[in-house]
Amino acid sequence: MKRILLTNDDGIYAKGIEALFKEMKKDYDVTVVAPETEQSAVGHAITLMNPLRLKTVKRNREFFGYAIDGTPADCVKLAIMELMKPRPDLLLSGINLGANVGINVIYSGTVSAATEGTMMGIPSMAISIDSFGEPDFTGAARIARFLVQKIFEKGLPAGTSLNVNVPAIPMGEIKGFALTKQGTSRFHEKFDRRLDPRNNIYYWLGGATWDRNTHADTDAGALAKKMVSITPIKHDLTNYHALDELKKWDISHKPA
Amino acid sequence: MKRILLTNDDGIYAKGIEALFKEMKKDYDVTVVAPETEQSAVGHAITLMNPLRLKTVKRNREFFGYAIDGTPADCVKLAIMELMKPRPDLLLSGINLGANVGINVIYSGTVSAATEGTMMGIPSMAISIDSFGEPDFTGAARIARFLVQKIFEKGLPAGTSLNVNVPAIPMGEIKGFALTKQGTSRFHEKFDRRLDPRNNIYYWLGGATWDRNTHADTDAGALAKKMVSITPIKHDLTNYHALDELKKWDISHKPA
Repeated sequence: MKRILLTNDDGIYAKGIEALFKEMKKDYDVTVVAPETEQSAVGHAITLMNPLRLKTVKRNREFFGYAIDGTPADCVKLAIMELMKPRPDLLLSGINLGANVGINVIYSGTVSAATEGTMMGIPSMAISIDSFGEPDFTGAARIARFLVQKIFEKGLPAGTSLNVNVPAIPMGEIKGFALTKQGTSRFHEKFDRRLDPRNNIYYWLGGATWDRNTHADTDAGALAKKMVSITPIKHDLTNYHALDELKKWDISHKPA
Repeated sequence: MKRILLTNDDGIYAKGIEALFKEMKKDYDVTVVAPETEQSAVGHAITLMNPLRLKTVKRNREFFGYAIDGTPADCVKLAIMELMKPRPDLLLSGINLGANVGINVIYSGTVSAATEGTMMGIPSMAISIDSFGEPDFTGAARIARFLVQKIFEKGLPAGTSLNVNVPAIPMGEIKGFALTKQGTSRFHEKFDRRLDPRNNIYYWLGGATWDRNTHADTDAGALAKKMVSITPIKHDLTNYHALDELKKWDISHKPA
């Protein structure tokens, strides 16, 4: 039986990871290693200056998995390097509450967990649902199982993880799958400037409203058309097109 | 006079940011907004669940800048959205102690600060020195000033920041500049498994040794040839080549 590492960034007590666990258990040997607390927007942070502790977590009186007081990337490193011998056959991260599309992919702990898995040589997929409410995760979990089966059948392109986003609508209304690129959707944010009880100023990032770019071939575009978005993600950040432009700079001499 | 936002991930008290401040002051109006404490390996984390506080910091009895109890990306957001009116003309992040090359670019707070600047529409550059000791930062600072002047002259390609890495050798020994791609260099890490004073297990990520891929056209390859590496970085993580491979998957039907 194939062995799957399951993680997330909403924390081990989140409903999304429980739904994914239940669904994947039907076909696979699933090990949960997830952050103890919510780690949204931690991106690809890893913990160097502090030790990491491991706690076993039960759900419904049964062993569910390991909670780590760190980031999603910490969980992936610890699971693959220490906790799972042999290493897992696949990594699954999610189901994240809230779409990871556009510029927000950069901040996403869910996606970073998958990227970390890929960098460690494990086929990896992140999955999110486009809702900040209390969605039904069962459809998205079934889609995850379907795509995991595809990954085992076909393999993933080298150095590539999948970033999957599912509309928060009943399965019957979902139109299908779309291969997409990361779009330019983003949150418009502003800082609240406040005074604490001692009249000291502090700032709090808030006021986020989505500015969705739903161009046809993008992640958010697929969601707008009630489709499941699948974006192949890599960790090479080089802008190869820009290399040509920069060749026009006169930098043949260093400063004197 | 052009206005520059200066930040880093080693924290406002680090020597690298002081060297950069001194050098850039020669030509520019420089505002320092940097993390209060070291934030290495925080990647693109931002702080949502906690407020951010601002502290003025002096060096040599003179106002130096603002310290924030957050990440480099927090500093960039707060500086651009709240502290600098009008917005800065350029963002400079560094000088980081330790090269940001290969896979480690993903974990880098220094590079993520520049990426955040670019996403907010500010031309941005990250600069690091290839040393974990106590290097002389003055050469790297001069190189930063030279490249900033180039950016103001020529402009940066759209959506692109620069990730610059400087060898830790005297200026006279540096061979010049190289335009590079992000290589595959990485740290080989392992977890220390230890017992605390109460016999509880904890894990600590350590044992990092560089595995440098010094292929000719990569960032670490340039450093190995005593050249300054300049890598154009983007925040679109889509693997466009993989899109074609994935088209071969049979996903025209969703799961029943």
